[in-house]
Amino acid sequence: MYIVRVNMTTGKIKVEPVPEKYKILGNRGLVARITYDEILPTCNPIGPRNKLIIASSPMEGVGITCAGRISVGGKSPLTGGAKEANSGGVAGSRMACHGIRAIIVEGRPENKRLQILHINKDVMELVDAEDLRGKGTYATTHTLLERYGKSAAVISIGPAGEQMLGASGVFVNDMEGDSGRAAARGGVGAIMGAKYIKAIVIEHDGNFKRQVQNEAAFKNVRMKLHKAILSNPGAAFYTKMGTMGFMMPVHALGAMPTKGFTEGTWDRVEEVNGERYLEEIAKRGGEGKPIHACMPGCIVRCSNIYPDKNGKKIVSPLEYESGDLLGPNLCIDDLDSIAEMTYLCNDYGLDTIEVGVALGVAAHAGIFVWGDKKRARELIDEIGKGTYLGKIIGSGAVTVGKVFGIDKVPAVKGQAMAAYDPRGVKSMGVTYTMTPMGADHTAAVTFRTPIDHFHWEGAIDVSRNIQVTVAFYDTYFCSFIARGIGPADTYLLVELFNQVLGTKYTDTSFMSEIGKDTIKYERMFNIAAGVNEEWVPEFMRDEPLIPHGRKSDIPESEYARYWDTEFWGEFPPMPARL
Amino acid sequence: MYIVRVNMTTGKIKVEPVPEKYKILGNRGLVARITYDEILPTCNPIGPRNKLIIASSPMEGVGITCAGRISVGGKSPLTGGAKEANSGGVAGSRMACHGIRAIIVEGRPENKRLQILHINKDVMELVDAEDLRGKGTYATTHTLLERYGKSAAVISIGPAGEQMLGASGVFVNDMEGDSGRAAARGGVGAIMGAKYIKAIVIEHDGNFKRQVQNEAAFKNVRMKLHKAILSNPGAAFYTKMGTMGFMMPVHALGAMPTKGFTEGTWDRVEEVNGERYLEEIAKRGGEGKPIHACMPGCIVRCSNIYPDKNGKKIVSPLEYESGDLLGPNLCIDDLDSIAEMTYLCNDYGLDTIEVGVALGVAAHAGIFVWGDKKRARELIDEIGKGTYLGKIIGSGAVTVGKVFGIDKVPAVKGQAMAAYDPRGVKSMGVTYTMTPMGADHTAAVTFRTPIDHFHWEGAIDVSRNIQVTVAFYDTYFCSFIARGIGPADTYLLVELFNQVLGTKYTDTSFMSEIGKDTIKYERMFNIAAGVNEEWVPEFMRDEPLIPHGRKSDIPESEYARYWDTEFWGEFPPMPARL
Repeated sequence: MYIVRVNMTTGKIKVEPVPEKYKILGNRGLVARITYDEILPTCNPIGPRNKLIIASSPMEGVGITCAGRISVGGKSPLTGGAKEANSGGVAGSRMACHGIRAIIVEGRPENKRLQILHINKDVMELVDAEDLRGKGTYATTHTLLERYGKSAAVISIGPAGEQMLGASGVFVNDMEGDSGRAAARGGVGAIMGAKYIKAIVIEHDGNFKRQVQNEAAFKNVRMKLHKAILSNPGAAFYTKMGTMGFMMPVHALGAMPTKGFTEGTWDRVEEVNGERYLEEIAKRGGEGKPIHACMPGCIVRCSNIYPDKNGKKIVSPLEYESGDLLGPNLCIDDLDSIAEMTYLCNDYGLDTIEVGVALGVAAHAGIFVWGDKKRARELIDEIGKGTYLGKIIGSGAVTVGKVFGIDKVPAVKGQAMAAYDPRGVKSMGVTYTMTPMGADHTAAVTFRTPIDHFHWEGAIDVSRNIQVTVAFYDTYFCSFIARGIGPADTYLLVELFNQVLGTKYTDTSFMSEIGKDTIKYERMFNIAAGVNEEWVPEFMRDEPLIPHGRKSDIPESEYARYWDTEFWGEFPPMPARL
Repeated sequence: MYIVRVNMTTGKIKVEPVPEKYKILGNRGLVARITYDEILPTCNPIGPRNKLIIASSPMEGVGITCAGRISVGGKSPLTGGAKEANSGGVAGSRMACHGIRAIIVEGRPENKRLQILHINKDVMELVDAEDLRGKGTYATTHTLLERYGKSAAVISIGPAGEQMLGASGVFVNDMEGDSGRAAARGGVGAIMGAKYIKAIVIEHDGNFKRQVQNEAAFKNVRMKLHKAILSNPGAAFYTKMGTMGFMMPVHALGAMPTKGFTEGTWDRVEEVNGERYLEEIAKRGGEGKPIHACMPGCIVRCSNIYPDKNGKKIVSPLEYESGDLLGPNLCIDDLDSIAEMTYLCNDYGLDTIEVGVALGVAAHAGIFVWGDKKRARELIDEIGKGTYLGKIIGSGAVTVGKVFGIDKVPAVKGQAMAAYDPRGVKSMGVTYTMTPMGADHTAAVTFRTPIDHFHWEGAIDVSRNIQVTVAFYDTYFCSFIARGIGPADTYLLVELFNQVLGTKYTDTSFMSEIGKDTIKYERMFNIAAGVNEEWVPEFMRDEPLIPHGRKSDIPESEYARYWDTEFWGEFPPMPARL
């Protein structure tokens, strides 16, 4: 398989075989390694030395479910550290059909003209894209699918990414041709914008063929894996409810961010929760779908299509993070508004989490009134249009706090918290504090682990173990497969890996090894970049979360053991800083 | 002597004797220790756990020159680390007359009403100051001098500090009653604003008496010291030229920030340099003064009063940093405009350095056109008025870069560089990188050291030695005394310290011990706060500075020896983080 290396300074594109040391790595694990190996940790995230890295999975292309995601990463404009954000959509499958494990974009064009990177079986080229400047991701994607064929993948940024805003993400088209799949977090859209890449188009005409070790044995283990997932209640929950199903359990723990992270429950939650959303989809019919696959071959199908009252699609998907942070977090009690804001964020190329939290901070600053859904939409429009206020909000929650002098900013390492208040679920505070990613729930969502979430005892271990597990799955699959493969079924991965990657594993210990390695490389990059652990913000340590009155109270001594080499093994050396 | 502790949450004021361990410390050294001992390193700089610390010198009050400065500090809203900024004016002398070594303001008032802290021999009280909200520092100061007597000290913030902006400073009145003396850097105005203290008024009616060991011996050494300073050519240079005299030497090295730190020399420099400014003051007469003391008893008198064409004072003082960063750095070639902008910054309570650099970044973003002095003034007005654009610029250079997607941001650790491009004077890159203060020239101005400033060899040692020396002088005197006391005269300080502080020093080694200790406490606070060394920004490593074509190129291996315990001795333990 190959790495496509695009130098924006020279305009040259090179194709390199995947080096031996990256052979079995994809997605987050590969992004972590390339970041560590190639990016100067002290570079400016929007400068020429940062790199935009897009990686696919080595499991994709042989009919395994949940292997079609892509990871987008580099040095984060928000955290200043290693960043990986991942997305569904068709891009992983299109990269795989050309045998492309990763695309690395480096340098910066002197003329600052937007470009498209266009790939099909015959060409790899940069094409001027100034005609698409300022266009939303939906229009960009539709235009490019028109131009290059409906089955192409389009990885694009919107006006937010062009503006290099901290809240900007990278968007991928789904099977319907809409750019609703977001590698949202950490400002990865700004990295792409700083490379002046408006979109990457990968046509569906590749004929790269993967070899497995033994076709029959491979098909057998693949079938067993798919069966295991299909019979797993964890996967069934995702299929039925999607992530919107998280709302009530998180609410039950009193940890659902409400009114700018001042409350953990909401008396109007039933207006916007997962049950209500299913009801609305069922009632409205039309284009709505409660069950929907975000990428080819997915059997979990946690996605959805949310329709308006006339059955016309508003957006796909509606997720819990957007649902809460653009909903209860802003005291907005209307699913249609939340769906419309999600659409706007996707179109402008924005992370709904960063935007939702930033709007909450803006509300604390008096920029808008809780529950004012019209004004909330206008403010998202301002980001897209690039007004001064829009640029402030689009720069993320921490910038809003700085500019308006607000200290109630739910963020860690420059990045807004996801929709789990760490006062309600103590171990989420560990995730936010210790992951190299900043306040990123994708590093380890812990609320489902059956422990006492009201007290910190055990929180370190729960989060750390899940972080390692997720870092492994993030390297090959959609991390939701981690819920779909029960502990009793992980042995299937030994055979699967040996078949597809030619490894000689005899037990599942490789899983945690790969997960740990990924985090260790990310951490060492961060240390060189000057990014350290950052605690949950002061206000969460001092102000009790309504209504349960809990604070973030994990003692420093607990954190001190987090990076024990007894758990992690040896760390790689710190990369050079100059 | 005493520490006045003001709790804004409860409104209580306590007077405590200076603890034994702080007995011989004042100003920066004392701020460093209190910061380390009392401030939670991970607190929010504008939250209730940060503290505003104002310290005077233990050398003040016994007629020693240059001992009347105050230090203002706490956890910096810009750098996130330990911060000390100092200022002349009459506050040091007024604190000393009441025996006040330090004022520590903690907590936060729930009602968020602005207060005055009023101190005279009979009362220490908080007085409502909502009537002064939004008022500039000049009007605030004039109002309060009217109310409390002309000889009082007024330590105030302007609208910038009230807005808790990163570029806000703390301002002190001079002997003419104008608030032109700035503890400018690091956003200390925001710390004061976050405590809701609009001003601290200290009347001149204290009758605290200092005892020296032996009056005759003390007077003798004091006289010798003053004579030494008066006969020193270093001091004479300051007296004659003030800091505006730095412009041509820095220009000669090709290190004078020009056009947003893209060039190091300017063909119009003679319109705005020190020679020109002296000429204008002489020509215009009236209230203008080329030689002016910023505080009572100063015999160096590096300050000045810059008049307009009719001889009416525009501002006092005009300093090199403002002169360059609001002048050549913005391609503004007009001293009167620079003086007027300086006045505006003082009045709004802004750091001219942070504002000048932020405007340069804004110019790179196309917000204004190089040389447009009218627009530059308007933008400073926008900061004062608190428009969205004003708040962005007033949040400092790094925020302007983030919000507008500009990577050419001359800042380190969140704080804008002073008027020495580190590509032109390599050792200034060491100062900016290694001082716990961020890109702060006051930590060590190195350009006068007679070494080859074009190459990095020796740069570490030059900067490190000066940093230690300055940290010592900053703890007792105006750091300009360091230029006024030649190496052959430092022995006088042994006797002076023994007389005033009751120490038993036998040689001058205590100077570097105190300087090192100060920096070591600042550093350990920073480490606990997660603030590490940050290199000079990438663009300075990659883009040659016009016209000499030099880059910032000190290798990491050189930096590696900076914190050698062989040089520093043992460091204090890291303070607790939670």
